[in-house]
Amino acid sequence: FMRTVDLIRKKRDGGTLTGDEIAHLVRGYTRGEIPDYQISSFLMAVLWRGLSDDEVLRFTEEMMRTGEVVDLSWIPGPKVDKHSTGGVGDKTSLVLAPLAAAAGVRVPMVSGRGLGHTGGTLDKLESIPGFNVNLSLSQYKNVLRDVGLVMIGQTKEIAPADKKLYALRDVTGTVESYGLISASIMSKKMAEGIDALVLDVKTGDGAFMKTLEDSRRLAETMVRIGHGMGKKMRALITDMNQPLGRMVGNALEVIECLETLRGRGPEDLTTLSVELAAQMVVLGGFASHMEHARALMRDLIESGAGLEKFREVIAEQGGDPAVVDDYSCLPAAAHKYELAADTSGFVRSLAAESVGLASMILGAGREQVDSKIDPGVGIELHKKVGDRVERGERLCTVHYNGAERLSEAVFLLVSAYRFSEEPPPVRTLIYEVI
Amino acid sequence: FMRTVDLIRKKRDGGTLTGDEIAHLVRGYTRGEIPDYQISSFLMAVLWRGLSDDEVLRFTEEMMRTGEVVDLSWIPGPKVDKHSTGGVGDKTSLVLAPLAAAAGVRVPMVSGRGLGHTGGTLDKLESIPGFNVNLSLSQYKNVLRDVGLVMIGQTKEIAPADKKLYALRDVTGTVESYGLISASIMSKKMAEGIDALVLDVKTGDGAFMKTLEDSRRLAETMVRIGHGMGKKMRALITDMNQPLGRMVGNALEVIECLETLRGRGPEDLTTLSVELAAQMVVLGGFASHMEHARALMRDLIESGAGLEKFREVIAEQGGDPAVVDDYSCLPAAAHKYELAADTSGFVRSLAAESVGLASMILGAGREQVDSKIDPGVGIELHKKVGDRVERGERLCTVHYNGAERLSEAVFLLVSAYRFSEEPPPVRTLIYEVI
Repeated sequence: FMRTVDLIRKKRDGGTLTGDEIAHLVRGYTRGEIPDYQISSFLMAVLWRGLSDDEVLRFTEEMMRTGEVVDLSWIPGPKVDKHSTGGVGDKTSLVLAPLAAAAGVRVPMVSGRGLGHTGGTLDKLESIPGFNVNLSLSQYKNVLRDVGLVMIGQTKEIAPADKKLYALRDVTGTVESYGLISASIMSKKMAEGIDALVLDVKTGDGAFMKTLEDSRRLAETMVRIGHGMGKKMRALITDMNQPLGRMVGNALEVIECLETLRGRGPEDLTTLSVELAAQMVVLGGFASHMEHARALMRDLIESGAGLEKFREVIAEQGGDPAVVDDYSCLPAAAHKYELAADTSGFVRSLAAESVGLASMILGAGREQVDSKIDPGVGIELHKKVGDRVERGERLCTVHYNGAERLSEAVFLLVSAYRFSEEPPPVRTLIYEVI
Repeated sequence: FMRTVDLIRKKRDGGTLTGDEIAHLVRGYTRGEIPDYQISSFLMAVLWRGLSDDEVLRFTEEMMRTGEVVDLSWIPGPKVDKHSTGGVGDKTSLVLAPLAAAAGVRVPMVSGRGLGHTGGTLDKLESIPGFNVNLSLSQYKNVLRDVGLVMIGQTKEIAPADKKLYALRDVTGTVESYGLISASIMSKKMAEGIDALVLDVKTGDGAFMKTLEDSRRLAETMVRIGHGMGKKMRALITDMNQPLGRMVGNALEVIECLETLRGRGPEDLTTLSVELAAQMVVLGGFASHMEHARALMRDLIESGAGLEKFREVIAEQGGDPAVVDDYSCLPAAAHKYELAADTSGFVRSLAAESVGLASMILGAGREQVDSKIDPGVGIELHKKVGDRVERGERLCTVHYNGAERLSEAVFLLVSAYRFSEEPPPVRTLIYEVI
């Protein structure tokens, strides 16, 4: 017989929990046998004392096992997904998933929605008229088999413990634990039926992890969990001090992804998407080294094979494939506001978080979990870090519908830009590969 | 507008809460506006980060103010109480309260019940046939005015926040905080309407605090709170490595107290009761220094004035005053078991906690909060630390009713005694006065 209070005290006093003890907590809580108030004091003890690698692995496994673990072994070929810890303008999924799938990798992608200043892949996909991200697990498997790529939202069957735990952590000040964050992400990813996973851990002011050290620690923890569960893993630590690409907002980002698949995308988005897709291709065994994989991805952009794969998955998931060639089929905001520079110089910095908040305020993101998204609004950045600006020149275009909160958004954008007389040092896009 | 989660995070990150923030937490929780799961993660953060002196004082005041703060200022004379952190055979209240009252101090004593291996003053008093500890607050005031001494249990009106918080701490592994323990004790004591308080902080294996350092820290914290609230304070740190006196069990302890008030009590109990009563008398202003106060207490034993005061309060609170002269009016166990020594030597140690547990198992204490007490059972210790024992000689007498758990209790008593060939060093009874 195991008493929950004894497990709380054990962690509080710096002890290490056994697999059985972790199973007791995760299963008991998910079933409603252990009350919220015991789990919340336990979680605070975890923030205090930390979790060992083995504890994190056990937590991940137990959380995964509270739900369905999808079996994709009957579908031939390696299944590889990518997960990002979230950022502003972070739209690589819509570029890399079609590219990797066009190279033969099976990409079963389960994504989330945006909250606060960060966007979500699901919200971007849903700006495509008709696109259905709410597939059943059997539809999910069939689309993956037929198209080689599927993009859906979290289902109720996957890791229900995580949903319940996350909601509790959010209101009890117990979110910020490497172990718990890792277990939350990995319990869902490991339930997807994948063989390998590429992680894009964002670092910087627009990311959840603000410092390189914190990001590295999170990346290493998740890589260890994946290895512990027999998966191939790769983690990239990438910059989120300014938004990725030039578009922030749902339909605007879809357009930028289509442009990138046509070879006309911004350099940072193209580079990072190619890099992540190439890692997926290497993990999937379709290229023996990165140089080859990168060249392959560039070829799939050049040939239009990536774009065709995206068109295919849009059609298969109920979306209007006409958007691929005619961007006017996508929702657009009614009004535009041009923000002009009041000084000349170089853009020294462009705070990602402020841009993300401005976009959220316009309606592109959620202030609360139940906020409604406006798919057409967003921000088009004409100037990014290192760009030369003349006084009076456009910095960005704000795409908006209601004018109520426009000034608030513009204020954030004005404060996001910082200028210098000399060009700032060149920014690194990819800091580390783990 | 204050968000509870922000206060949790503030404490988690090592911050210091303001008075308003503490008021928000204590009042909101008591009113049911803040849920258990937020308070429990907050409490674990308090165990992690600690509380400043000022935070502890604010907590105490806020907890006290959730209930009634008794006004005794209309009763003339200084009101002084004593509080013990609890031990085995710790029965000084029943000796010192009549002594201090006989000297003119008003003693408004609100006590608790026993739980686990420690006994409670209320359980001891209730072994006196008819004795009513459940007085209303107005009865409480009237008995104090008329007798100069009143002994009751916690009422619902006093510090309801403490009751709710303590129940939560018990099941969430958040009991062991100096600040929270101090605030819990002091919020109730400060609501009694007293002018001064003497603390008996027990230290040793039978006490809540096992080391002198921990006990000192707890004592100092409580003294600071009392001073912060304008009360005169004195704290004694006293030994609880072996039981106090020779009797453990409710009616047995009442008999020992009556014997002590007759001048025939065991030395340790007499010394400590006199010392604590003398401190009360000094704080109350009835003696200018301890030497005088001690002599006064010895006189009140000699003259029988203490015994008469006890008889008076028993009668006033509905008890049978005949018990004072005729111990057969008290409940007694049906059977006795004599435990004999299987070796000769000196008693080196006598584990208080084991003796307390043995007594609890016999029915003198509570395993759960709702366990029923058997007032007649207990243990009579014939040999204590330093005593010479011959093989076959009686160590203790077990007073029991049902035989079901006798062997379990005897096993604990056997394991409680440790022997040595040489006499052990003399034990200190009072370590420090703060």
